[in-house]
Amino acid sequence: MTNKMPALLKKNGARGITLDSAPRPSCGRSEVLIRIQKTGICGTDLHIYAWDEWAQSRVHPPFIVGHEFVGVIEAVGEGVDGFAPGEQVSGEGHIGCGHCYFCRTGQGHICRKVEIIGVDRDGCFAQFMSLPQSNVWKVRPGIPPEVAAIFDPLGNAMHTVMAQPVAGKTLAIVGAGAIGLMACKIARAAGALRVLVVEPQAQKRAMAVEFGAEDAYDPAQTGWFEEFAKKTSDGVGADVVLEISGSLAGIRNAFEMVRPGGEVALLGIPSNPVTLNLSEAIIFKGVTVRGINGRLMYESWYQCERFLMEHKLDLSPLITHQMPYQRYEEAFDLLQRGQAVKIILDWE
Amino acid sequence: MTNKMPALLKKNGARGITLDSAPRPSCGRSEVLIRIQKTGICGTDLHIYAWDEWAQSRVHPPFIVGHEFVGVIEAVGEGVDGFAPGEQVSGEGHIGCGHCYFCRTGQGHICRKVEIIGVDRDGCFAQFMSLPQSNVWKVRPGIPPEVAAIFDPLGNAMHTVMAQPVAGKTLAIVGAGAIGLMACKIARAAGALRVLVVEPQAQKRAMAVEFGAEDAYDPAQTGWFEEFAKKTSDGVGADVVLEISGSLAGIRNAFEMVRPGGEVALLGIPSNPVTLNLSEAIIFKGVTVRGINGRLMYESWYQCERFLMEHKLDLSPLITHQMPYQRYEEAFDLLQRGQAVKIILDWE
Amino acid sequence: MTNKMPALLKKNGARGITLDSAPRPSCGRSEVLIRIQKTGICGTDLHIYAWDEWAQSRVHPPFIVGHEFVGVIEAVGEGVDGFAPGEQVSGEGHIGCGHCYFCRTGQGHICRKVEIIGVDRDGCFAQFMSLPQSNVWKVRPGIPPEVAAIFDPLGNAMHTVMAQPVAGKTLAIVGAGAIGLMACKIARAAGALRVLVVEPQAQKRAMAVEFGAEDAYDPAQTGWFEEFAKKTSDGVGADVVLEISGSLAGIRNAFEMVRPGGEVALLGIPSNPVTLNLSEAIIFKGVTVRGINGRLMYESWYQCERFLMEHKLDLSPLITHQMPYQRYEEAFDLLQRGQAVKIILDWE
Amino acid sequence: MTNKMPALLKKNGARGITLDSAPRPSCGRSEVLIRIQKTGICGTDLHIYAWDEWAQSRVHPPFIVGHEFVGVIEAVGEGVDGFAPGEQVSGEGHIGCGHCYFCRTGQGHICRKVEIIGVDRDGCFAQFMSLPQSNVWKVRPGIPPEVAAIFDPLGNAMHTVMAQPVAGKTLAIVGAGAIGLMACKIARAAGALRVLVVEPQAQKRAMAVEFGAEDAYDPAQTGWFEEFAKKTSDGVGADVVLEISGSLAGIRNAFEMVRPGGEVALLGIPSNPVTLNLSEAIIFKGVTVRGINGRLMYESWYQCERFLMEHKLDLSPLITHQMPYQRYEEAFDLLQRGQAVKIILDWE
Repeated sequence: MTNKMPALLKKNGARGITLDSAPRPSCGRSEVLIRIQKTGICGTDLHIYAWDEWAQSRVHPPFIVGHEFVGVIEAVGEGVDGFAPGEQVSGEGHIGCGHCYFCRTGQGHICRKVEIIGVDRDGCFAQFMSLPQSNVWKVRPGIPPEVAAIFDPLGNAMHTVMAQPVAGKTLAIVGAGAIGLMACKIARAAGALRVLVVEPQAQKRAMAVEFGAEDAYDPAQTGWFEEFAKKTSDGVGADVVLEISGSLAGIRNAFEMVRPGGEVALLGIPSNPVTLNLSEAIIFKGVTVRGINGRLMYESWYQCERFLMEHKLDLSPLITHQMPYQRYEEAFDLLQRGQAVKIILDWE
Repeated sequence: MTNKMPALLKKNGARGITLDSAPRPSCGRSEVLIRIQKTGICGTDLHIYAWDEWAQSRVHPPFIVGHEFVGVIEAVGEGVDGFAPGEQVSGEGHIGCGHCYFCRTGQGHICRKVEIIGVDRDGCFAQFMSLPQSNVWKVRPGIPPEVAAIFDPLGNAMHTVMAQPVAGKTLAIVGAGAIGLMACKIARAAGALRVLVVEPQAQKRAMAVEFGAEDAYDPAQTGWFEEFAKKTSDGVGADVVLEISGSLAGIRNAFEMVRPGGEVALLGIPSNPVTLNLSEAIIFKGVTVRGINGRLMYESWYQCERFLMEHKLDLSPLITHQMPYQRYEEAFDLLQRGQAVKIILDWE
Repeated sequence: MTNKMPALLKKNGARGITLDSAPRPSCGRSEVLIRIQKTGICGTDLHIYAWDEWAQSRVHPPFIVGHEFVGVIEAVGEGVDGFAPGEQVSGEGHIGCGHCYFCRTGQGHICRKVEIIGVDRDGCFAQFMSLPQSNVWKVRPGIPPEVAAIFDPLGNAMHTVMAQPVAGKTLAIVGAGAIGLMACKIARAAGALRVLVVEPQAQKRAMAVEFGAEDAYDPAQTGWFEEFAKKTSDGVGADVVLEISGSLAGIRNAFEMVRPGGEVALLGIPSNPVTLNLSEAIIFKGVTVRGINGRLMYESWYQCERFLMEHKLDLSPLITHQMPYQRYEEAFDLLQRGQAVKIILDWE
Repeated sequence: MTNKMPALLKKNGARGITLDSAPRPSCGRSEVLIRIQKTGICGTDLHIYAWDEWAQSRVHPPFIVGHEFVGVIEAVGEGVDGFAPGEQVSGEGHIGCGHCYFCRTGQGHICRKVEIIGVDRDGCFAQFMSLPQSNVWKVRPGIPPEVAAIFDPLGNAMHTVMAQPVAGKTLAIVGAGAIGLMACKIARAAGALRVLVVEPQAQKRAMAVEFGAEDAYDPAQTGWFEEFAKKTSDGVGADVVLEISGSLAGIRNAFEMVRPGGEVALLGIPSNPVTLNLSEAIIFKGVTVRGINGRLMYESWYQCERFLMEHKLDLSPLITHQMPYQRYEEAFDLLQRGQAVKIILDWE
């Protein structure tokens, strides 16, 4: 038996990701060693591949990339209880320090010392990965493995939608990529009366409607805002707006679209500072804005499981491609050219 | 008996306010006619006096200025019940339409058709003013008239502090003008464990400490932020930040000062767009931001009354000057030169 | 033109309701005179008919019965604006004093001086009724008149469901009468993942399943609780329980059925004191209990309108009978014998 | 070195507690071994001593009693990080399973498999105790050891007060034993405008006033309720009521005392079922009731620390006696006869 395994590595400070052999990780006393089955590729992975400004300022090669996965437990450390080899698991990629105010009050996702797999430490684009037992999540029978592989972004979408009540509300979503589309479906299942989407790409707009949006607007089209406003109660705007694009225009639109007294959840991460007329955008309107980071540990995970188990969320149309990990270059290329929504790499 | 009364008028589109004779207002069927006793001068009135960019875009002379007042009921319309001549009253200056979703669900302060006295219609800098009965507020015995005259800004401060729980929290206030100082005292009375203030003027910093702040920092001083951070739990920042300055630097500081998972209330109104690094300021930290406009109708008024009645708030040091309305030019001049905090004009 | 109209009167302290001629009500200055089209019969009306203990202690004949209605504006008082003859309206039957803390903070439904139409003052089982303009609600085109006639109980159901977030939750409803069935449909539309009902009558259990319940249990059946528990996450009980039966057994069941940390909303009104093991029912489990009275004024009304407008709620199966008001004895009889769910009386 | 230590044991199913020699506990891999310095005696310990109905149904001798303590770390298991011998610590006595929905979402205090020290497993009335590292709490310098010893009941009081906002509210407390008195002081520090106490014992009423209550009523005195009501806004009752007595009369009083729309927190544990008129007590008034169990893990602990560190809470008057553990019989006797509030046993 070898101690080596295949892995997708960010080897150094340059564009690209490399398929190479890496040491198989050990399994610490409180850790679970997972044999990876399937992984999802996320926008963060694209940034790391592209080695853009954000990546250069944030990550330190060499390391194994990836944070969306499903796998099977290969081994457990001596101090682990409640998990056994053979169980199918996914896991939370934010690893908190466990000792601080945030970690001890259920807010580990904003721990000041949080480490993210595939960013701050080795990730899941490999045959094996070790994870602290506190971060391991058992997959319930009946949840398809390719869906279990994307609990991480699904949890982002869930956290964003559930950050405020949406039942009986008119809800707008800015940006219909994978997470925006998930949010669309979650919001409908969570009782939003009407979901209105803004998205520049025609194909994603079509998908948003398929995922339950009443309408999807092209922000490049003159008059879209008036069309949108007409679809809200008394034309005053949406009760809740979810900003998932991270684009400057998207963020400005979000604050235009929300009604007085409404709520905005910000998940999309703008790469540059944003200039806002705060008086009009937030203050005079009495708007509430929430920054959303990661997933609630572990409320968001339970919510994902329950929504899926009750068959409210069919996410399969999102997964436009599945391919073996060896074809990762093709996968990254498809995503970079906007020709895929979510791609799953198979490791078995 | 004459039908004329003295009033401070914004007569036309130029700098200044004029003391002149104006028609005594009639008292509509559902209105209360109030003989004004005392009025407070607010920053908004200074903008109207100065005829700055905001004033030019917002108000339409001629009209009577002023929205902070206390007075005595002179007469009531036929349709009014529950009010009688001789009662001392103040009143809410935001007059909602009464018919829309906002007005019918207790959110009249953000009604789309709201009219503000002294801005959109005649105000209280006069011997008499009429107000719809729904907006009249009886002054409880034991509340000094000069304090009753400033329930409007006190209500702003109350709304800002009470927009999130502050008991047991470390709270920061940016800007120690009249409202910031009121917020300081309210926050302490409401159980904030520690109040930390940022304010450029030395005299206001001293007053903040007198009003209950643990410390007050000069943002022009190198190292103030580190000093501030040391005073927060584990150095991670304040649990709650109240932005009351409306200055660009103040707003940026507010987002630096709040801890991950913390809350920011924005009351100060910036006159220009603000450039923010939203990723760091709000999203990664998982911060909640609330825009604050006016007062809750009428929860904020009850809260002001109760805090005052239980003698928790001695606001008298705030009222640095009281003078007859004929000396209004002197009053505006003192305020413009920063030599006064709150000035009361007497109309009796 | 006569000044008389037909009306269903509680004439004196004895069993029964009388169809008689009554003076047509005047229309006060701030009132709206409504020509009644359709009315719904509620459990409260049955109590008044039966002249039971509750009725004897609560109401003072003679008065016109009824509080569920839709009609057309016949005339408006001089002080009324925003309403005009010919408009179709329903209305809130709780008339607050308008001056107290509760009325001025959006809690008029618990005003200490509230008067309820058809209970404390003349109601809607008549050709005409006057109502203060603040309590009148315009019916949106597209809402069927027989549904507009039952906005009152629909608002009770809405208030009960929306008193806590239900999206993504397992929800139990105790009692599947008209309001329980409405709650069933609302809860599903509001995102409850699973609705489980307890109801002794087989026909209502069947209707509950038709209205979206996953299962409906007969509390007389041995083992029903175990069946129910199996349908909740990890068998620990429902996240939210709505108690709408008002029966002693129902209330005890509600507290057995809720999970630790869960929420119970109490709408059903028990006619006798209830003996509860508070330690087990509420304290050790850390349960939150909310008493529900009437409707939020007017948040519940907007919610009803929006849920209906978006076609999420088809309430027609609830309305088992419609008949002219002259056949009211037959209607009361059907309801008393449990052979109807909701009966509409026509007044045109 | 011996493996024996002194301990206060519940040896068998009969009245009394025995001072005896017990095996010194081992220190598991993830555990911390604590050398006990001081312990507090709680009402639960009295029940165990008395071997009353509750004790007979709940606990299984033999075991070491006690759950309120402060001590010094003697040793740490191999898997422990962040704790070192010599550090002064207290600890949370509710030990959750760590794997269930409750434990993984910050609600470990209501875990279905929770074990409580001194009740379900060996407690702290001994020279040494082992505790899982997750339950250990470091004592900040500046907090007196006898206060650190009673963080457990202080956390109960904190959890009860902070279960709803109290700033600006009129608050009533039913029962002024040790926890009621702590709640009194916490409520004042947390911004309650007025605290009104009901307590049968004169000495405790006097202490309540000393701890910040505006007034303390003897429920045996005719007219006390009217006196109480007069002290609330408009005579409608308290905004928030904390029920800490657990007595039947106290619980009934709590629901009489709360205003419409108010909130009741139930911490006191009645030993028998309670008969309530739910319609009047909860439903018509629209009251919210919260069952309070244990402490929030670990929000309540941080709150206790912060309130104490800011010197808002001087708890020393509560600790009426301190004595060596050998005099435990005297201590239990004083408490049983109501001649002490809180007694600390010294183990050094």
